[in-house]
Amino acid sequence: MANKMKQINIGLLGAGTVGGGVILVLNQNRDLITERVGAEIQIKKVLARHPEKVRALDASLPTTDKIEDIVNDPDISIVVELMGREHPALEYMEAALRGGKNVVTANKDVVATHGKELFELAAAHHVDFLFEAAVAGGIPIIRPLKESLAANRISKIMGIINGTTNYMLTKMTQEHMDFAEVLKEAQDKGYAESDPTADVGGFDAARKIAILASIAFNSRVGLDDVYVEGIDKISSRDIEYADELGYVIKLLGIAKQKEGKGVSARVHPTMLRKDHPLATVNDVFNAVYVEGQPVGEAMFFGRGAGRMPTASAVCGDIIESTRNILAGCTGRVGCTCYEAKPMLPPEEIISPCYIRMLVEDQPGVWATIASAFGENKVSLKTVVQKRSLGTLAEIVVITYGVSEFALRKAADALSKLAVVARICNIIRVEDSTLE
Amino acid sequence: MANKMKQINIGLLGAGTVGGGVILVLNQNRDLITERVGAEIQIKKVLARHPEKVRALDASLPTTDKIEDIVNDPDISIVVELMGREHPALEYMEAALRGGKNVVTANKDVVATHGKELFELAAAHHVDFLFEAAVAGGIPIIRPLKESLAANRISKIMGIINGTTNYMLTKMTQEHMDFAEVLKEAQDKGYAESDPTADVGGFDAARKIAILASIAFNSRVGLDDVYVEGIDKISSRDIEYADELGYVIKLLGIAKQKEGKGVSARVHPTMLRKDHPLATVNDVFNAVYVEGQPVGEAMFFGRGAGRMPTASAVCGDIIESTRNILAGCTGRVGCTCYEAKPMLPPEEIISPCYIRMLVEDQPGVWATIASAFGENKVSLKTVVQKRSLGTLAEIVVITYGVSEFALRKAADALSKLAVVARICNIIRVEDSTLE
Repeated sequence: MANKMKQINIGLLGAGTVGGGVILVLNQNRDLITERVGAEIQIKKVLARHPEKVRALDASLPTTDKIEDIVNDPDISIVVELMGREHPALEYMEAALRGGKNVVTANKDVVATHGKELFELAAAHHVDFLFEAAVAGGIPIIRPLKESLAANRISKIMGIINGTTNYMLTKMTQEHMDFAEVLKEAQDKGYAESDPTADVGGFDAARKIAILASIAFNSRVGLDDVYVEGIDKISSRDIEYADELGYVIKLLGIAKQKEGKGVSARVHPTMLRKDHPLATVNDVFNAVYVEGQPVGEAMFFGRGAGRMPTASAVCGDIIESTRNILAGCTGRVGCTCYEAKPMLPPEEIISPCYIRMLVEDQPGVWATIASAFGENKVSLKTVVQKRSLGTLAEIVVITYGVSEFALRKAADALSKLAVVARICNIIRVEDSTLE
Repeated sequence: MANKMKQINIGLLGAGTVGGGVILVLNQNRDLITERVGAEIQIKKVLARHPEKVRALDASLPTTDKIEDIVNDPDISIVVELMGREHPALEYMEAALRGGKNVVTANKDVVATHGKELFELAAAHHVDFLFEAAVAGGIPIIRPLKESLAANRISKIMGIINGTTNYMLTKMTQEHMDFAEVLKEAQDKGYAESDPTADVGGFDAARKIAILASIAFNSRVGLDDVYVEGIDKISSRDIEYADELGYVIKLLGIAKQKEGKGVSARVHPTMLRKDHPLATVNDVFNAVYVEGQPVGEAMFFGRGAGRMPTASAVCGDIIESTRNILAGCTGRVGCTCYEAKPMLPPEEIISPCYIRMLVEDQPGVWATIASAFGENKVSLKTVVQKRSLGTLAEIVVITYGVSEFALRKAADALSKLAVVARICNIIRVEDSTLE
């Protein structure tokens, strides 16, 4: 290169799985990134607890164990936070923003909980605060929502945003495995942690749907605003019955906005029509589905986790910020939560439901059950008897759209009936033909 | 609003289907767009052949029949070209760029053919030249490729990028309809034009894959570089046999890059494994699938045409340019074709193939046919006899990866064999397990 190429320096906080991936990508694709951006992107210093891990990836990279070496370095323009967890990642990012540095992060905990403060700091210092990698790993979704789809009034955003549970449900569906069995296999393969609560309990997905909902609806949705239910109660029997009824079971993050009625956000196992674009998203893949006007439907699919896909998103943000630095317009797109919309209470969320229960196998039972639903204003779409178990019969009910409030009342009334032995499971159904 | 809000003025060229959609979206979502952008976006003048159509959508919009009224108006910052066709759209955009105006277009003909000149003009005048709507309608794909995925070395980009043919193939697959029958239905529904050549012949898709390949591989791929084959030879019999073998038939645009071997781009009916993410993209929906490092696989799905989805993409670009104007960084991301990579000649493109043929139904025929393939270095994966037709048998052959050159030689040799009555169809197969 004859011309002197500009150089943009990065400070990297953390060199674990994703941090290591970023080091690899910036090295392996250096030629191509330099040409596309018109500047060299160089990691100047790495904050690392294990400097030997950094040296193993790139022996020439200087490391430090002091955050000041990075946030006080005037040559560093972009601080990339990949340490994970809330603290001290939050404080380090705040220090970087206060120092006038652009910040890129993959930290969904911090973004979901402290997005507001960080955006305000970024705006005050006219710098970028970017977090594409915090949701759905390698899949471009944050920037497409904020930019490409910026003219849309979004009514629904819904996604398979946890790879571990999607892998587990796919196995349960395709190989008829049980929950406990498939959890063990996922743990053995490294897809699930030894304490799987964050994934299996839906809490990881909750952080992501909170972030997506905030962007889609321009109103901050906090973690506490998200109703959460995990997949641990899903049995292979539910999956089998879902299949027979034309559905698959997926753990979905679902956020909706009804004009004048506020915003709702929830994570729970969901029966989804087999012809829905999300229904064929299997294994560890993620996808985010959007409905809005004028775009209609759109979906974004890819790998939601893993070293390299996540590094793709982080490096995309680094390139974005670099282009903004070169063009003198950092902070070009900031926070878009300009409203404070009311949250719809979970009891008022309306959704069709699947109810599996054991009832006495005798004449007149169906009428008794149908009356209990009817008295509680729950309309039924389908009632099917699935199995006979001695004196009991297993039946499955699909309702039309019903509020959580009415559903709980109906379930309560049903369980008090002498003919109902047990309500085995209740799963929400996402099916626009039943709403 | 107490503060005086900035106003960004647009000149709109064309108020047909998409232009009308843009007028509707900017009006219907005005509140939300103004808040998200921090400025009011106002159509100042519309170049329209039928001013009454503009008035029917918005009586307050001034119209003109002189391009000078728009490109010479110093208050207009963004010119939005939605006239379609090559001329005079090209000349109008050139005039706008020369006048220092940002340009947004949905015109795939002009972008595929004159992208280079237009980008050079935009760069010389430090303005934006944006064309998200030129490929795959409402689906965000151009900006995600240039920005979100900018750190990726892309090896393959492949898409269902023509809604008409996807609708037709879906109908043929699901309802076992014939090509002629389904074409008529598509024409009756307004999905296909009275002269359907551009869609059915693959030429519309060719323009789009040329644009996508140019961006993905940073090297300009022209229309003449794309090998094109339409869907008119696909019979319901081929679709049925594909199904039995685990495939669906889709019209795909496929562009690949092999390091050191150049770039290839083609449009043809393709047999795709049923578990591929593109395989379940049906009806008029479009999707673009990308493979690259580090992202792995990603797919973008949505409506590829129609007034409102296309207006979504156009308005997204208008918002992008408005934000650039406000931040003083128009032209921030320009042309990324910084290389001139060689094109792989079509004869050297390697792909597995499906061959359906009629042969004499007698002993020893399979050996004769297998020898003809072998002598021409074509390896076979599967040979199946499908039907008996008097003295003839219909057989289907699936090959491993074979160059177009070797395939043509083999087909030539086969058709000269006395035992081969006819080669009925040859369809390329996209299946990484056979490459």
